[in-house]
Formats: sequence, C-alpha cells, structure tokens
Amino acid sequence: MATRPGPGVTLDAFTDRYAQRTHGMTASEIRALFAVASRPEVVSLAGGMPNLSALPLDAVGKLTGELISSRGAQALQYGSGQGDPHLRELICDVMALEGIEASSEDVVVTVGSQQALDLVTRVFIDPGDVVLAEAPSYVGALGTFAAFQAEVVHVAMDDEGLVPEALREAIAAVKAAGKKAKFLYTVPNFHNPAGVSLVESRRDEVLAICEEAGLLVLEDNPYGLLGFDAPPTRAIRARGTDASGRSDSVLYLGSFSKTFAPGLRVGWVLAPHAVREKLVLAAEAAVLCPPQLNQMLVADYLSTQDWQGQVAAFRSMSRERRDARLEALAQLMPAGTTWTHPTGGFYVWVTLPGELDSKLLLPRAVTARVAFVPGTAFYADGTGRNHLRLSYCYPEPERIREGVRRLSTVLDEEVELRATFGATGPGRASRRQAESPSPDMA
Amino acid sequence: MATRPGPGVTLDAFTDRYAQRTHGMTASEIRALFAVASRPEVVSLAGGMPNLSALPLDAVGKLTGELISSRGAQALQYGSGQGDPHLRELICDVMALEGIEASSEDVVVTVGSQQALDLVTRVFIDPGDVVLAEAPSYVGALGTFAAFQAEVVHVAMDDEGLVPEALREAIAAVKAAGKKAKFLYTVPNFHNPAGVSLVESRRDEVLAICEEAGLLVLEDNPYGLLGFDAPPTRAIRARGTDASGRSDSVLYLGSFSKTFAPGLRVGWVLAPHAVREKLVLAAEAAVLCPPQLNQMLVADYLSTQDWQGQVAAFRSMSRERRDARLEALAQLMPAGTTWTHPTGGFYVWVTLPGELDSKLLLPRAVTARVAFVPGTAFYADGTGRNHLRLSYCYPEPERIREGVRRLSTVLDEEVELRATFGATGPGRASRRQAESPSPDMA
Repeated sequence: MATRPGPGVTLDAFTDRYAQRTHGMTASEIRALFAVASRPEVVSLAGGMPNLSALPLDAVGKLTGELISSRGAQALQYGSGQGDPHLRELICDVMALEGIEASSEDVVVTVGSQQALDLVTRVFIDPGDVVLAEAPSYVGALGTFAAFQAEVVHVAMDDEGLVPEALREAIAAVKAAGKKAKFLYTVPNFHNPAGVSLVESRRDEVLAICEEAGLLVLEDNPYGLLGFDAPPTRAIRARGTDASGRSDSVLYLGSFSKTFAPGLRVGWVLAPHAVREKLVLAAEAAVLCPPQLNQMLVADYLSTQDWQGQVAAFRSMSRERRDARLEALAQLMPAGTTWTHPTGGFYVWVTLPGELDSKLLLPRAVTARVAFVPGTAFYADGTGRNHLRLSYCYPEPERIREGVRRLSTVLDEEVELRATFGATGPGRASRRQAESPSPDMA
Repeated sequence: MATRPGPGVTLDAFTDRYAQRTHGMTASEIRALFAVASRPEVVSLAGGMPNLSALPLDAVGKLTGELISSRGAQALQYGSGQGDPHLRELICDVMALEGIEASSEDVVVTVGSQQALDLVTRVFIDPGDVVLAEAPSYVGALGTFAAFQAEVVHVAMDDEGLVPEALREAIAAVKAAGKKAKFLYTVPNFHNPAGVSLVESRRDEVLAICEEAGLLVLEDNPYGLLGFDAPPTRAIRARGTDASGRSDSVLYLGSFSKTFAPGLRVGWVLAPHAVREKLVLAAEAAVLCPPQLNQMLVADYLSTQDWQGQVAAFRSMSRERRDARLEALAQLMPAGTTWTHPTGGFYVWVTLPGELDSKLLLPRAVTARVAFVPGTAFYADGTGRNHLRLSYCYPEPERIREGVRRLSTVLDEEVELRATFGATGPGRASRRQAESPSPDMA
C-alpha cells in the first residue's frame, strides 16, 4: 500500500543523481512566509530592496534608449568575459572615493556582487574548507558558501564591528582542529544584518591578523557610500597595498545595486592579479560575459549624470527612514529589547528580551501584517533565534512606524504569554542547512 | 640565485590556496591569438557572434526607453530568482514552436544559456562523474563541465547527428569502467561546431537509450529556429512527456542570444519540477536573480515586435553567408579537405587532409589575416587536430570569401611543405585541460 509522504517530505525522483553539494541546498523554511509577506497589506521590514522612487526614471530611460539607438550593435552583442574596459576604468574612480588605488586590469565585472561571491568561493573553496565570517553574516554569502560546502566559523562583533581578538581566537581554533581556513568574509561598512561598521582603528589590525595567518580578506562593500554622518571610511583594500597600489591580501567586492539600480545586476570584484585571471576563467564558464547593455548603461550613467548627487538623495531617504525606525523602536519595543544604531546602510539588528524566538514569532508577525527576517538566517550554525533584522530601506517612514507598531504588539503578546504560561515553543537549535537567499532578503 | 621562470610559467602566489577545481582552469593557448585576431584587418571566421545589423535598433531603443520611463521602478529593481513570470509564459510560447508543451512554473530564466549549463552541472556533477557529449562538442559546455571536474566521454556523430549505436556503446563502456554517468549533453539542431542536425528518426531512439540507462538528456538548443530549409524539428523534450506535457527525462536549454541579442544575456532552462527547485536555489546562490530590465525588455520585444519576422531576417542573412562559405570552400580548399553542409545555424566543420594540424596552423593563419577555431577546442581529450570550425554568422559574404581564400593559401603552403619536407610539427596529442571559452568562441 502506498503511503502518503509526511509533511515537509518532498518526493524527488532525482535524489540519487544530484551532486553531493546539492543535498545541502534546501529552500528556507521562511521562504513560503515571504510569499505571503509580499502582499500589499503586509508592511515588509524584511527586504533589502533600495527604494528607487528617487531615481530620475525619465532621464535613465532617455539615456538607455539613446545608447541602444546609437551604439546598439555593441550594447546588444557579446562582450568581454572580464567586463567592459570603460566601465572598469570608471569603477576604479568609484573605488578611489574610499582611498583605493587600483588598475582596471584587476577589476572583473560581475552579475551583481552576488556573482563575485560565487566566483571567489568557487575558485578558493574545497568541501570542508573554512570561511571565517562575522556573527551574524549576510544571508546571501552564507548561501553561496554552503553551495560550495564550506564550513563557516563565525567571529564575534561588537558595536565597533568585528572583534580582532575573537578573530585571532577563531583562527587558532581552526588551526588546532586541523582545518584549512581560506578567507575572512567581512562587510566592514553598515553591516548586513548587524548595522554596525568596523571602526578605523581596527582595520589595520584585522588585515594584519589575516596576513599573518595567510588568509585572504574578502571585503564586501555594497553600502560604503551610504553613510549618513561622515565621508566614507578608508577601505581595508586601501591599506594592504604596495607602492603601486596593488594588494595580495584583499579581494574587494562592490556593487551598483544600492547606489544605482539592482535590476541591472552590475557588481564587481577587485582581486590580486593572479586571482583575477582565475576569476575571469570561472566567470566565462559561468555566464560567458556579463550583459553588455547593462554595463554600458552604468558607464553612461556614471559619465553623464550627477550620480553622486543621486547617492546623496538615497542617503537622505535612508536617513529619514532610519530616524523613523529608531524613534519607533524606542517608543514601542518591550522592555529588555535592544538594537543597533546604524549610521548608514539599510538595517537595524534587534536583540529580543529573554527567551523570545524570532523564527517562531514570524508566522504570527505575518498574520499581524508585518514581516522581518529572523536572526537564524544570518548564522550558519542554527543560532540567532533571539535576533531579528529590520530593514529601513524601502517603506515610507509612516509605514515603518506602523510596521514597528504591529511588531511590538506581537512581541508584547508573547512576553505576556510567557510571563503567564512559560515558553510556547521548543526552541530547537537545529543545525541550519544551506538556506539560499531569496532576492527579498538580499 | 633566483632563476627566471621559463616561458609560459606563471608565478602565482595563490596556487596553494585555490580549490582543486581551479587547478583545471587554465587559459586556452589560443586565447592570446584571438586578441590578435580581433584586429580589423583579420577576417575572423572564429566567432559565434550573431550579426546584429538587421536588428531595428531605433525601435528597440524606443521600447527600452519607454520601459524604463514607465515601469522603471520594477525594471531596475530586484526580481524573482526563477525569473520574471510574464517572460516565462512567453518562453513557453517560443518553445511551442518546436512542439513543446510546458508550464511556465518549470522554466528558470538564466543569464544566457551558459548559466543554465553552469547551474545544471553544479546541481548534478560531482568530481569524476561522467558527462556523455557529442564528438565534437560546444566549447563553452566543455569549459563548464571541466570547471566542475566532470569527465567527458565523447560519442560519435555522423551527417545525421549523434549515432545511437555509439551512444549505447559509450554508456556500456562507462558502466563497465565503474563510473557514474549523469547526463547526455547534446545540441540536436545545427550543431556547434559540427553543423549537422539530429535527424527526426533518431530522436526517439536517443531518448529511449538515455531513459533506459537512467540518464538525463541535456538538450541545448540555441539554433533551433535558425533552419534555412524547413520548419523546426520537434524537440527531444517534446517527446519524453506524460499526458500533461511534463517530462522527467529532458532538461531543455534555450536562449535569446541568437534570435534577438546576446548582449542581454537572457536564456532559460526547462526542467522537471523537482530539478527546477534545485536550479532556482543554485541560481540564487550564484546571482540572486537575473537582470529584471533585460527580462522585461525581451518580454516587451516578444509582445510588441514582429520577432518571428526578425528571426526570418536573421535566417536569410545566415543563409546567404552559408552559401558564400560553401561556394568558396568548394572553389578553394586543397584536395582531400571535406566539410559539413549545414542547413541552419552558424557553423561549418572542416576536416583537413592528411596530417594537417589546425592548432599548429592557427598562428600562420592569423599572420595571413584569417582566424578560425582549431578542432581541439571542441574535444575534452586533446583530439580534433585535423578539424577546424568556420563560422559564417558575422562577416559579410565578400569577407567570407576573402577569409576562405586566405585560409586556402595557408593550407596549400602547408600541403606543399609536407610534400617536400614531411611533417613540420610534433603533432603532440597532449591531454586537453579545461579551456574556458572566450565569448568570441561562443
């Protein structure tokens, strides 16, 4: 007699044929909830989508139309696997704003910086190799590391970013366990999800620790130009350089997704020369070349529009939303809740009081028409349940306040329930499998 | 005393840190030559770039400008990891032209069909797994298979495409050797590089052989609508279906690179439902989502323009060039040279007389201002030296004739030299490493 599969069991006739790495690829449990959360009545504080309402769409449309009419035979054709040479020059100018001197020869244009993460991981990671990464870390990077069967070892952060002493200890522990660490993955500016930045005074030290241990630093910097209060901090990549501006220690990842438009999928990686060659070969095997139209559009945009003025407008919008968020949190969160105070970027990291479990609370929050990302998404080891990430990049300030109000109601109820009846859930800390990010969560 | 590295030796300080798979990624020896071959004085018969001169650039520019002006907030934003739902519906209409019934739920939009190759390989291939593939095979697929450390076993073709009996024997040999074959990779229509098609009468048989052996068929079909003489042949995917049009045996890859514009990098894969889920997870780890702008542009183009009329125009151009190519070959090639007679697509596959070695001849050909791709690029095992691929997609007919004339001069000289002095080169059949394709060679 045939039996019905139990809940959550997928009948997959191909299971025996998949590669080993594929068995670690499972859809996030929270993915289904996000489908619900995309309904208009839900205030999503979950997504990392920039609010593009400030973009001059008519000007960008005109620019693109002219690009295709006048240079379409090039824009619609195959291009270089490394990326358009003119755009690579302009990317060097963008990086110079953070103190980086680089040759466009060492830049590889990628399909968003997610592809840069993928290529670097593909080139360096054998199954079982260790990646050191902040606790918490960007969910999309964790998904890529898992896709190549890396083991992620988390390193503690505090309000000043990655803790150098914790990094030293983690490196020693990995070595003592006989494992091979390949690189440190870090988001030094306006961290996703933690909302903190690596202070100036720690940057040289972090780099020195990695260099001494023979580790590369993978500096992922999508938010560097989105600081509210101060000019950009000098990049880690700007520090580990020789007289000619080259570095053999840092791979730097950048993106136009937060400063222009994510729908173009244009990012880049700046790498030591030898590594750059491998990345181009890997990129060609992956996609042949990035879309030429998108690259020429970004190049035209950078060359002809006041793009830095546009970034300033994005910053102002985010700042206003950040203020609304922090004000609402201060007014509404239950006692014992704490959160970070970001000075740029998109995210606030909230720590819940007592034993509250953000993953168990998410379905109730969605029912109450508010969505967030549970902290567990940002850890490779199943921890993070008493955290959650709130983004302030997309909704209007009034919606942000309303979202926080709805969230506070859910939290208040849970606090009260627990005070009355004790814990409502088992709080299992099951080891997290590779949860590939949905774009909502970028 | 420090010694200088010998010629061809790269000092790469990262060698000890790369993943195993990276050691197989080496730049093709012919890559440097193609940099020379891109000079305007060289007639390139090497590239697989479609000639876009027939595209209505003003109309496409206008379409794109309006798309951004009116729907830019969506077009420039993150999209779905699986791809735009509207475009996926339209892709089903395109596939229906080859007899495929499919649900848009089972379509994944990719960054060109190269990314579809990459995702399928990533999901199915462990190091050492076998991929069966035609002899010769598309260089970009071989690069991807090598990047995931697959072992490629070539299967003979004749003028009617893949030889079923050779497929049976290859499957038996792989099994006898205790190896695990995962899929058959095939380009059934207007094969790249061989220029032949799998005849109707063999299609059911090839599918049945694979199904019996528990192999998937990876049907790569960028050229299916580019036949000169007849309507499209029914796809393999259209055969292995149940009553509702689903198939558990075939993964079908398609692309808009040859029917619209490669610079947009929009391709797709149609997969069995369970496999589709894995492909989406792999795609999200690789790039989060394909560029939304490009997908909406293709959707608008398909919906508002006479795209099939445009494909007919591309076909006429290619046909005229094919005729010029075949005529020039018949007039100019040295005795003993043979070639295929393609009825669609972009490529003629040439077999040289006697012991002529296309790889050794390429530098002389480039000096004589003509470029081709040596046959070795299309074999995973170092063979193919007495073949070369000539494309007829890009240059004008007059340039095609001139290119063939220059090539014939080089071949004639070599034939004469050999008649006088014997072989000029060692003819080493060194085992080929993973030669990632350059986009020129797509």
